[in-house]
Amino acid sequence: GSTEDRNPAIVLPNQEDDTYQFALDLGGSLIKLVYFSKHSDASAACAGAGPTCSRSDSGRQLTRFPTHGGRLHFVKFETSKISDCLEFIKSKALHCYGLKYISNGMCSEEGSIIKATGGGAFKFADVFREKLGVTFDKEDEMGCLVAGANFLLKAIRHEAFTHLEGHKEFVQIDPNELFPYLLVNIGSGVSIIKVDGEGQFQRVSGTNLGGGTFWGLGRLLTKCRNFDEILDLSQKGDNSAVDMLVGDIYGGLDYSKIGLSASTIASSFGKVISDEKDLSGYTREDIALSLLRMISYNIGQIAYLNALRYGLKRIFFGGFFIRGHAYTMDTMSFAISFWSKGEAQAMFLRHEGFLGALGAFLSYDKHGLT
Amino acid sequence: GSTEDRNPAIVLPNQEDDTYQFALDLGGSLIKLVYFSKHSDASAACAGAGPTCSRSDSGRQLTRFPTHGGRLHFVKFETSKISDCLEFIKSKALHCYGLKYISNGMCSEEGSIIKATGGGAFKFADVFREKLGVTFDKEDEMGCLVAGANFLLKAIRHEAFTHLEGHKEFVQIDPNELFPYLLVNIGSGVSIIKVDGEGQFQRVSGTNLGGGTFWGLGRLLTKCRNFDEILDLSQKGDNSAVDMLVGDIYGGLDYSKIGLSASTIASSFGKVISDEKDLSGYTREDIALSLLRMISYNIGQIAYLNALRYGLKRIFFGGFFIRGHAYTMDTMSFAISFWSKGEAQAMFLRHEGFLGALGAFLSYDKHGLT
Ligand SMILES: CC(C)(COP(=O)(O)O)[C@@H](O)C(=O)NCCC(=O)O
Ligand SMILES: CC(C)(COP(=O)(O)O)[C@@H](O)C(=O)NCCC(=O)O
Repeated sequence: GSTEDRNPAIVLPNQEDDTYQFALDLGGSLIKLVYFSKHSDASAACAGAGPTCSRSDSGRQLTRFPTHGGRLHFVKFETSKISDCLEFIKSKALHCYGLKYISNGMCSEEGSIIKATGGGAFKFADVFREKLGVTFDKEDEMGCLVAGANFLLKAIRHEAFTHLEGHKEFVQIDPNELFPYLLVNIGSGVSIIKVDGEGQFQRVSGTNLGGGTFWGLGRLLTKCRNFDEILDLSQKGDNSAVDMLVGDIYGGLDYSKIGLSASTIASSFGKVISDEKDLSGYTREDIALSLLRMISYNIGQIAYLNALRYGLKRIFFGGFFIRGHAYTMDTMSFAISFWSKGEAQAMFLRHEGFLGALGAFLSYDKHGLT
Repeated sequence: GSTEDRNPAIVLPNQEDDTYQFALDLGGSLIKLVYFSKHSDASAACAGAGPTCSRSDSGRQLTRFPTHGGRLHFVKFETSKISDCLEFIKSKALHCYGLKYISNGMCSEEGSIIKATGGGAFKFADVFREKLGVTFDKEDEMGCLVAGANFLLKAIRHEAFTHLEGHKEFVQIDPNELFPYLLVNIGSGVSIIKVDGEGQFQRVSGTNLGGGTFWGLGRLLTKCRNFDEILDLSQKGDNSAVDMLVGDIYGGLDYSKIGLSASTIASSFGKVISDEKDLSGYTREDIALSLLRMISYNIGQIAYLNALRYGLKRIFFGGFFIRGHAYTMDTMSFAISFWSKGEAQAMFLRHEGFLGALGAFLSYDKHGLT
């Protein structure tokens, strides 16, 4: 369509109470956007957005929670489709915060300063300046993750939960007993951070087997077009057709002396080594599930080993790898519980994917949110 | 060919000094066989073997080292091709040790008791009884790995070496200062064992991302027929075409605040998530190298985290994943050195793949080898 179709003029009703300040976390795979509207109405996310809100937003997630005197909204985009993000910002005139909005994505003047974190705050600074006339005020990625997690864990009810054997349970954490904890953020790669207090933290480890690995390997192996398709596929899979289990090696027996049951995965993808079966005999579903278990379990194990180093009992997992997917969470919980013999606990966050973006937003420090 | 062709009659010259006792480690992917000949001649491995030794033995490795009054020989087979192993044993009449050999793979009587370890000691006991008339005396896999490693490290010169940035250096270890150490055996899966002394050890961890994972995933991704083909392929690869580097996320910059340089892998296979490039645009070579780095680095990292737990400075890697491959060893060494800030050291073993089989052999305890 024409430029006008794709960037429809937006008249913001009631500019006074309906301000749209925003912050960005530009990761390797996904851009996360958090914006705030003073408008307290539940439909605020759509206020003035016209066609944007009614159109099907695949690849985006729109959730919101109320804060003092307003609402925070959460949206995500694929980093490779950065133009969708720019369009969204224009369509809502988010970049005109504090300025007069004219029309067609134009503000009365340029020069808004936007809090941005993640590698893209460096990589895409020029693009945002060029297309929207905004300047990035860069915030450290780890600091933002921690600030976002601390805020969620302290201020939001029903944020943290456990997920074991298909059972989800919300956990209310006493803000006075929050620290220390381990924060594991699973983006394209994984960062593992020991959090000791507000602004007090240390990135103690990480792994390059993360969400990008699941997605990239999954795409190569299943030809799926996106992350969620691979995840869907995995739900119909049986990983034991692909994985070599302890029982496959031990003739159906447990290796009980070292605590491995016959059904434990001895070697992910280990069954595929045999050339007795044609490669086409392995289904995409089984492969997707094996991959999901491999990555989830490995992250859980490395997280546990780091928690152990510092005697931490609580491990919070964030990042868009999780996507509220029950099997992913169960696998990570199992890993933590297996290796720690029940001593440590895996917990998840409802706003898992937006820790960094939220942290960047909070760094404006003008909303009295913290 | 006929049965006679495939199992040629073997006359063992000089039965008295040319005895062939053997032991097996039957793993998920590979069967490792160690046999001993009193014959001290370097050509002992071929003595009496007739056509077996002159034929091209792809998939087998034949190395040997002298021991007191004899020689140990090392051979491996793919577990899925167990009949090759049975044939080899017959061709050398190894199963007739202590019995009279008649011909065509037949001994004067049945009933040899063979030391066997690994899961196949359970899974394939019936096959060996049926085909060769031998009974397995099962030895614990972890115990055998440790016994094999201890023997090699104490008794064999030029066994252990470091491998960093392409540079190999043999390390002579004082037998009185050997313990404690961490043993990481990379078979189909990985076992991580803390070794405190002769027969004193504990399996402290493991990971299901092991040699079988490299082989299985590698086969699915590259369609190679075997492990070594994938490894060869990787030598022509450039993983940065497939992996998402820190610099790819951070616009070419380091993320120096947390010690990550632009060239660090942020996410293995993370570049493949973008659907801008067609899947056929990723080469098998690049994929093979990315996979090799992913698995090697991950094992190195998990090994390091376990060494740290127990304050161990020396980590020995064994198992047939390594295959003396320089890049594999460099990657693992880098992981250990990076995470430990140079405190811990990765070491490799010349007889890497035969620790378990050697340990099983030593459990006969009749050779005065220990
Ligand atoms: C470099 C990163 C912090 C970037 O964050 P991301 O865009 O993946 O969310 C992250 O990918 C990471 O921590 N990678 C792991 C690197 C490592 O410690 O091995
Ligand atoms: C079960 C095994 C001991 C079998 O040995 P293998 O045949 O792989 O050499 C090994 O595959 C293993 O340790 N797997 C890892 C299981 C885990 O700890 O996650």
